[in-house]
Amino acid sequence: MDKINAIITNNPVGGVKYASINAGISSGKSIKLKPLYTGLCGTDRAEVSGSLSFTYNPPDQDYIVLGHEAVCQVIDVGPNVYGIKEGDVVVPVVRRAGQCVNCRIGRPDNCSDGENDIREAGVRGINGFMQDYFYDDIKNVIKINDKSMVKVATLTEPTKNVMKGFDVFDSVSKRTLFENEDSTYLNKNCVIIGTGGEAFLYAFMAREYRMNVFLTNRHDIGDYKKKIIDTIHAKFYDYTKEKMSNKIDLLIDTSGDPEAIIKFTEQLNFNGVLILFGTNGKAPAWQISGELINYIVERNITVSGSVDGAKKHYLKAVEYLEKWNYSENSVIKNLITGEFKPEDIGIFNKKPADEIKSVIKWY
Amino acid sequence: MDKINAIITNNPVGGVKYASINAGISSGKSIKLKPLYTGLCGTDRAEVSGSLSFTYNPPDQDYIVLGHEAVCQVIDVGPNVYGIKEGDVVVPVVRRAGQCVNCRIGRPDNCSDGENDIREAGVRGINGFMQDYFYDDIKNVIKINDKSMVKVATLTEPTKNVMKGFDVFDSVSKRTLFENEDSTYLNKNCVIIGTGGEAFLYAFMAREYRMNVFLTNRHDIGDYKKKIIDTIHAKFYDYTKEKMSNKIDLLIDTSGDPEAIIKFTEQLNFNGVLILFGTNGKAPAWQISGELINYIVERNITVSGSVDGAKKHYLKAVEYLEKWNYSENSVIKNLITGEFKPEDIGIFNKKPADEIKSVIKWY
Amino acid sequence: MDKINAIITNNPVGGVKYASINAGISSGKSIKLKPLYTGLCGTDRAEVSGSLSFTYNPPDQDYIVLGHEAVCQVIDVGPNVYGIKEGDVVVPVVRRAGQCVNCRIGRPDNCSDGENDIREAGVRGINGFMQDYFYDDIKNVIKINDKSMVKVATLTEPTKNVMKGFDVFDSVSKRTLFENEDSTYLNKNCVIIGTGGEAFLYAFMAREYRMNVFLTNRHDIGDYKKKIIDTIHAKFYDYTKEKMSNKIDLLIDTSGDPEAIIKFTEQLNFNGVLILFGTNGKAPAWQISGELINYIVERNITVSGSVDGAKKHYLKAVEYLEKWNYSENSVIKNLITGEFKPEDIGIFNKKPADEIKSVIKWY
Amino acid sequence: MDKINAIITNNPVGGVKYASINAGISSGKSIKLKPLYTGLCGTDRAEVSGSLSFTYNPPDQDYIVLGHEAVCQVIDVGPNVYGIKEGDVVVPVVRRAGQCVNCRIGRPDNCSDGENDIREAGVRGINGFMQDYFYDDIKNVIKINDKSMVKVATLTEPTKNVMKGFDVFDSVSKRTLFENEDSTYLNKNCVIIGTGGEAFLYAFMAREYRMNVFLTNRHDIGDYKKKIIDTIHAKFYDYTKEKMSNKIDLLIDTSGDPEAIIKFTEQLNFNGVLILFGTNGKAPAWQISGELINYIVERNITVSGSVDGAKKHYLKAVEYLEKWNYSENSVIKNLITGEFKPEDIGIFNKKPADEIKSVIKWY
Repeated sequence: MDKINAIITNNPVGGVKYASINAGISSGKSIKLKPLYTGLCGTDRAEVSGSLSFTYNPPDQDYIVLGHEAVCQVIDVGPNVYGIKEGDVVVPVVRRAGQCVNCRIGRPDNCSDGENDIREAGVRGINGFMQDYFYDDIKNVIKINDKSMVKVATLTEPTKNVMKGFDVFDSVSKRTLFENEDSTYLNKNCVIIGTGGEAFLYAFMAREYRMNVFLTNRHDIGDYKKKIIDTIHAKFYDYTKEKMSNKIDLLIDTSGDPEAIIKFTEQLNFNGVLILFGTNGKAPAWQISGELINYIVERNITVSGSVDGAKKHYLKAVEYLEKWNYSENSVIKNLITGEFKPEDIGIFNKKPADEIKSVIKWY
Repeated sequence: MDKINAIITNNPVGGVKYASINAGISSGKSIKLKPLYTGLCGTDRAEVSGSLSFTYNPPDQDYIVLGHEAVCQVIDVGPNVYGIKEGDVVVPVVRRAGQCVNCRIGRPDNCSDGENDIREAGVRGINGFMQDYFYDDIKNVIKINDKSMVKVATLTEPTKNVMKGFDVFDSVSKRTLFENEDSTYLNKNCVIIGTGGEAFLYAFMAREYRMNVFLTNRHDIGDYKKKIIDTIHAKFYDYTKEKMSNKIDLLIDTSGDPEAIIKFTEQLNFNGVLILFGTNGKAPAWQISGELINYIVERNITVSGSVDGAKKHYLKAVEYLEKWNYSENSVIKNLITGEFKPEDIGIFNKKPADEIKSVIKWY
Repeated sequence: MDKINAIITNNPVGGVKYASINAGISSGKSIKLKPLYTGLCGTDRAEVSGSLSFTYNPPDQDYIVLGHEAVCQVIDVGPNVYGIKEGDVVVPVVRRAGQCVNCRIGRPDNCSDGENDIREAGVRGINGFMQDYFYDDIKNVIKINDKSMVKVATLTEPTKNVMKGFDVFDSVSKRTLFENEDSTYLNKNCVIIGTGGEAFLYAFMAREYRMNVFLTNRHDIGDYKKKIIDTIHAKFYDYTKEKMSNKIDLLIDTSGDPEAIIKFTEQLNFNGVLILFGTNGKAPAWQISGELINYIVERNITVSGSVDGAKKHYLKAVEYLEKWNYSENSVIKNLITGEFKPEDIGIFNKKPADEIKSVIKWY
Repeated sequence: MDKINAIITNNPVGGVKYASINAGISSGKSIKLKPLYTGLCGTDRAEVSGSLSFTYNPPDQDYIVLGHEAVCQVIDVGPNVYGIKEGDVVVPVVRRAGQCVNCRIGRPDNCSDGENDIREAGVRGINGFMQDYFYDDIKNVIKINDKSMVKVATLTEPTKNVMKGFDVFDSVSKRTLFENEDSTYLNKNCVIIGTGGEAFLYAFMAREYRMNVFLTNRHDIGDYKKKIIDTIHAKFYDYTKEKMSNKIDLLIDTSGDPEAIIKFTEQLNFNGVLILFGTNGKAPAWQISGELINYIVERNITVSGSVDGAKKHYLKAVEYLEKWNYSENSVIKNLITGEFKPEDIGIFNKKPADEIKSVIKWY
């Protein structure tokens, strides 16, 4: 059996090693993939710190290969494979469908039985992408046609969450007439809680809706992040020091923090929409008053949890990353704040200062 | 100036009197209406107790006529009025449109500027319907064609809230595939928090969706209510003593109580929907944890406030009340638990035992 | 092998016999059903006349049992069957799901591969319901709870087509703001081409939308039909003699006749919707001009074919038939214009005068 | 009164002149605009040839300034104008809202009373943009932020039609599950009838949906057009010589030709959608058979006329033109096949060979 190097943990116990493991087997898989870049996110670090009780290793393994954000090169294809060839660049999807009614129409992100019916690469039951090579099915990869965007394409996986979030917004906001009297979103206020990678990607997309875009956090941020925010004509404010003078039409949370969520909900406009995306089970609880329930009712406010994204959201992510790869002097590239080697496993335990997205280069 | 009798309060101070007032003027109004029945709800009582700070009297009046649930007879029509004639039975609508983008398409229930742009009969700025007669515009009334349902039609106004609530559910639930794999809602669980008039009307409608319907409260209810629940094949349980063993697909709150709402939200299924309808600003606050935010995100749960209803919801209310007026031996009639005279103003201060809906008869 | 009586044809050749055949087998089926009433429709007659080339017998049979409109009594249930018991009254569904993406979510009516992926009782590949008894799966039947509507429930199958048609209307009409400025359909004009059973059922439902409802045909109709139309406050006109003076907002065709369809399309309003339901492959062709294409474009008109209905539409059919069973002195019952015995097979070759719906009584 | 030069016609009689006219007046208008580029389309030529009976001159004018496709520079702004300043580049909108329920929510493209309620610059009742300068309201212009796309932005107006067309597709296709079982449109076939400017822009957008894109016409096209089609990975075929072997999922017509429309409709797939965009009132009629009606019904096919677009579609047009301005070596720029001077009025009478989009440069 071939040996390869991989970054592994032991779910749900935690820990991280760059170790030699048995290579996966090709049986029943149609393509062989070599990662070019893999991205790191909060989920990877939470696995390493042992704080995600729902994670588990693949069957018959006492470890799991980490990593669910990747851009890979196709290095071999099986017989009768059409549409993908050696040398192509692809992004593999994280969540793999089960049997429920949503999974069977390609929406495992909306799985009706999420505790039992799905698996997630690098998180629940199947190995992730942080390894020298692995095998997968053609149906589980998204092709990147424009090779000038290979590194930027590492953002595809986090961006697909954003596309799902806006898909949910598009859908639930139809319950009232959310748009202005000129049919647009011009001058609607979109506030994004948080200033990490997902928050930035939400901001990039909110800007395409032509809303006024605000990122906010409970502390100041450095000039590097501020400059990116400025370039995309968004604004930042520290919410412990300032407050929006206008009502918020679309509120997106990437923090998972009840205190922040409740406080900003109190600033939502009539027909306002709150997309809950961030999760932080350990965040302290906060109080919700009868007055806030009243406020939500009287204003026809909608709050929607949104997790993951489907294959169509990966395609939409690529569609917009293709655009952002060129627009405003490729400012999107500045979201990748650090490039590491596979053996730099220290970054799983300690977040680099001013990190937006750290990536590992595999070639 | 003609004098008539009316039930009045002084918003937002409160109090209640059955008093002689100056009759309204017909100028600019096309029809003259005499109430047959008016219904009482929590809002009326809250006005009388002085606990609704957002209410206000009509301009140049130190009182407001109470009542926004009514069935009226047309006793006079102006010239050039088509579609309504003397003797017709109608239900007047509560909320009157302003200038915002939702109001201008007949959706004042979704008013984009609800603090400034709308008025509500008997609540904010215009007299209600608890008076010997009043004038209104033909566009503000809903015609009742089947005269065998006159008394039941008193439920039109509260039922229109239910129709809006389900309209919101229909709309927001489209964000995932909510239905079963056979396209129906059979065996989906709908839990309704509360056992008042609105809770019952929500139960009547949930049954039409063919869901399993549960009403619940934090205390037992008497046999009278239990029998109605039984007749419509719903179930009741006291949630301080029992818990659903299955997940809840659609949760409807009529209590406005943060504690109940949070506890039941923890039982929502993947893709579950919570409709917030009840309001009780004085209800004690309750804690929302980071884990619950996580739960909402991971399950793609949607929470929607829903207030009031549009003219189309009044029509839908009549459509279903017509049906319920006959079905299951007219059990809907049992929702009207007391019939009072205009001078019985004590019922504004003290809710009769086992009340579902108290009505005042005006003829 | 048990022998039973059944009404059979030989698809696609045609002919009709009331004959003794081998009873179906219970293997793999959970309930045994005895028809109470079966309805006849144009499809049955077209099979008998040999004019439906797409029909075919079940495998290994040189005949097919006719009949896809039925109300049945459950006369036996297998082990481990819940929710249905002996004596229950049910309506079996016609179309049975295949493997396509629409079939797998309970929408065989929207089958993505309708030529290969579905079967239809009494039409394509499985026996119909005009037989002494047969076996089926519990998932293929709709329960009728109100036993006072047994005979009316024979209309469930044709009514489910209407519910699908309006579901399509609800869906496609969202592309513009179709409703009035008061949010309702009041005074919108709905024209239904045809005066057969389906046309009447479309009229019953259009009335619930509160539109002005018109049935039309190219010949006069008798007083019997006119009286029903009058009772439901609809109107009839012979379109060879009269023309609508107003534009048509919703046009529903039950004729399948290109000439009628084209001529009425020319009267559609801005944002008008045309639902094509009727089929008549032998109807003469008619010309569509460049001007009519222009008319459709400039007015944002939508034309939607609509066939069959899903299980949810059967449930909705029952929901409204329950209502109509009582309303307006049960005028819905007048749609059943003739009751025949199984041996009266002449009615398959010759339509009784003034027929709306002929039914066969099996008990 | 100031004199300026303009390209004018006399609607609906026709003719074309580059003439000196009285400049417009600034009264009540907030910005002064100078065209940089204006585009020519079939409507301009049809006005010049006198074949559009619905067109009319502005009140008190015996001519109308032509042109509804423009990119302009702001050369003066009135007091209290925010968000636009001198030097900004903008695209003015064509259709101006009336009072109907669609117009009042910013959807004059869906005007409910299109014969009376709207005006269109350069076509019906207001002067177009082919003049040295003119005045307009800030609400009627779309700002172009990226000045590298000024010339490409001339395509904004025709592209907004495409965005509306796809908006209609998105909306009506929801009536069934149109997407693949993986949630995407990959390998769905989109056929576009026509090879003019709108056809090309539809192809650019269809490609973003990841469908297989085909342009087709009843004659061959030259290498220039073929190369563009090739660059965007679409395909061309001459439908008088070849036929699609697969079914068409999305069919878009830009020809207005009944014969082509009917013949391609016969190739639509189950749940297929046809968007009618092209208009040609003088195209010869063609026959529609009973069998085709049957085909549309049995396959749940939807046909939607789509005209014009709203302000939100202009913004979406800009969003994608920004992208296409960079992608695939700016192949979008090749759609502009000719640049003319205002005095070159011959191009209104004779289309240059291989024209996709001819533009007039005004500076």
